[in-house]
Amino acid sequence: MNINGKHHHTIWVNSKNKNCIDVIDQRYLPHKIDIYKIQNTDDAAYAIKEMVVRGAPLIGVTAAYGMYLACIEACEKSCKLSYIKDVATKLYNTRPTAVNLKWAIDEMSKLIEENSNNKLLPELALAKAEEIKLQDIDVCFNIGKHGLEIIRQLAAKKNNKTVNILTHCNAGWLATVDWGTATSPIYQAHQVGIDIHVWVDETRPRNQGASLTAFELNQQGVKHTLINDNTGGHLMQHGMVDLVIVGTDRTTRNGDVANKIGTYLKALAAFDNNIPFYVALPSSTLDLTIEDGVKNIPIETRDENEVKYVQGLEKKEIKSVLICPETTPALNYGFDVTPARLITGLITERGICEASEAGIKSLFPDLF
Amino acid sequence: MNINGKHHHTIWVNSKNKNCIDVIDQRYLPHKIDIYKIQNTDDAAYAIKEMVVRGAPLIGVTAAYGMYLACIEACEKSCKLSYIKDVATKLYNTRPTAVNLKWAIDEMSKLIEENSNNKLLPELALAKAEEIKLQDIDVCFNIGKHGLEIIRQLAAKKNNKTVNILTHCNAGWLATVDWGTATSPIYQAHQVGIDIHVWVDETRPRNQGASLTAFELNQQGVKHTLINDNTGGHLMQHGMVDLVIVGTDRTTRNGDVANKIGTYLKALAAFDNNIPFYVALPSSTLDLTIEDGVKNIPIETRDENEVKYVQGLEKKEIKSVLICPETTPALNYGFDVTPARLITGLITERGICEASEAGIKSLFPDLF
Repeated sequence: MNINGKHHHTIWVNSKNKNCIDVIDQRYLPHKIDIYKIQNTDDAAYAIKEMVVRGAPLIGVTAAYGMYLACIEACEKSCKLSYIKDVATKLYNTRPTAVNLKWAIDEMSKLIEENSNNKLLPELALAKAEEIKLQDIDVCFNIGKHGLEIIRQLAAKKNNKTVNILTHCNAGWLATVDWGTATSPIYQAHQVGIDIHVWVDETRPRNQGASLTAFELNQQGVKHTLINDNTGGHLMQHGMVDLVIVGTDRTTRNGDVANKIGTYLKALAAFDNNIPFYVALPSSTLDLTIEDGVKNIPIETRDENEVKYVQGLEKKEIKSVLICPETTPALNYGFDVTPARLITGLITERGICEASEAGIKSLFPDLF
Repeated sequence: MNINGKHHHTIWVNSKNKNCIDVIDQRYLPHKIDIYKIQNTDDAAYAIKEMVVRGAPLIGVTAAYGMYLACIEACEKSCKLSYIKDVATKLYNTRPTAVNLKWAIDEMSKLIEENSNNKLLPELALAKAEEIKLQDIDVCFNIGKHGLEIIRQLAAKKNNKTVNILTHCNAGWLATVDWGTATSPIYQAHQVGIDIHVWVDETRPRNQGASLTAFELNQQGVKHTLINDNTGGHLMQHGMVDLVIVGTDRTTRNGDVANKIGTYLKALAAFDNNIPFYVALPSSTLDLTIEDGVKNIPIETRDENEVKYVQGLEKKEIKSVLICPETTPALNYGFDVTPARLITGLITERGICEASEAGIKSLFPDLF
């Protein structure tokens, strides 16, 4: 999508050095637009762990390129495969909740194992990473195509009055390569001229809504309003939300979804007010090995300072301010799980289905 | 309660000048402990409107002292009563949601009208304001006494393992004169040696949880952990919350409560996980003229910059940082309404009752 009127992806091979992967550094957006250079596998792990890149799909693509860099590094070592396996483990351990990470690493590992003695392994790995990247764009576009129909129907039902969509965190193009997951239907609705307005949850602790989703929507010219995470319930009680669309980091066999902490609360409010609540997802977030998401999806805990400090701009500089007594302990869960019973439907690259095993099977019989 | 080991009230008559009311300035807590001097009715209105003081009960007490200052000012005017009525209107218009404000102004107005020709009117008004203040302390103490029994029972049920209590915003002693409403049972449980731990919602946009509740609990030595507003649902899903207690700014005839924005979301999560959700309230927050809180309680909207900026400490100075693109529009509702159906019970100064007209009537037949 666009930044300052120019089309961008979130990740690309450096045009002058194909051993270097460039990514948009998302840590200082919207105040500073920087490129971070991933020049080796340590950089790749750092970029994922420290959230230079974030969002389940983009984490997966970044890990795929990380595996390509592992092949380059392995060429300089004697024990090729075991080195690559160590890198896979290193990348896998960066973020525990998003399952795309594992998916992308597994895809790359399969190719690498099959071609471990091929002199062209780095080139083959690069081609595979590029393929995973292009596939992500394609998948996100298709999620948008299917989700657009939901917005179209709501617009018709409202006689073309503004359709108000609430989203949590950033499941935008910055969380993917292009289009986004939850935002793809939004961008496509905007492009075909449907009157939409987006409520953007700020999404504490890291404020990806305020800093990324608001930035994205602003750049594409989509009407939006920033709200605190506390506000969505009130808006829903008062008919100010027609639709909720969020992303997911992991979707279980029975349709439970792990997404950014606070998603569950919005799902409860949508359910209580009879408002459709959709989850947009590439099938790479499906984890069919897990049934009960609340019980069995591992939930990442992060540094308590993300809760105690808030980052923003003051006098043209990026600063972090302490919002509580210095000695106050804090706890920082990154995700929560929304049970399938609260979800109206899953918007996937193959269409929309019920959030249930039967629903998922109907679209993805090949995965069962 | 205590600040740095010394007992304080939030509001008191200046010991050297009885025409001056001192209050703890809550705008820069926990980073700076300041006294704000209310020297006239404009100061009183400013203190309430700009949240130098906040919390429904404390707003009421402050307005009562404001009405006392109006009597002093009126003595210098010819048209006494009409001047005082104008001040009443000015004070009433500072904050629309809290009903204690109206209650306290009405109490004072009644006394003033009955004694409008009495030369001792200012003294009488001061005595009445002091009475309202002492009554607030008494009411809060009694709320704590009744609420303590709930905590005691939970502790017994858990074989004296830690009772985890979640609270939203600050319904602490800083929101009242002493003890607090939601915190009064917590402080009393702590004093009798029950093992408790409090989850403190930071409570965006103004972070009264992070800046005030965490500060209060820290000062009284009560175990607590700060969390983002998004986190409570996850904790409840995982058995990490035994009880929710919040305050309220207005309670309707049928038991709906208006409280800080986001309370409704926590009530939904408590209900979904079968966790008791109690609202602690002085009867001065009852508004028996309203049946349906969601439809009919006026909800204050505040400056969008409270959403776009976050205040905190950086390099020993209090600063506000911008968390979104500068041009992003934001919307800032101060409160939401939790329907009675989600509330386990109301903890009042006269005991605990169901959140319903029958429940309220059983404790307060004199108000019907």
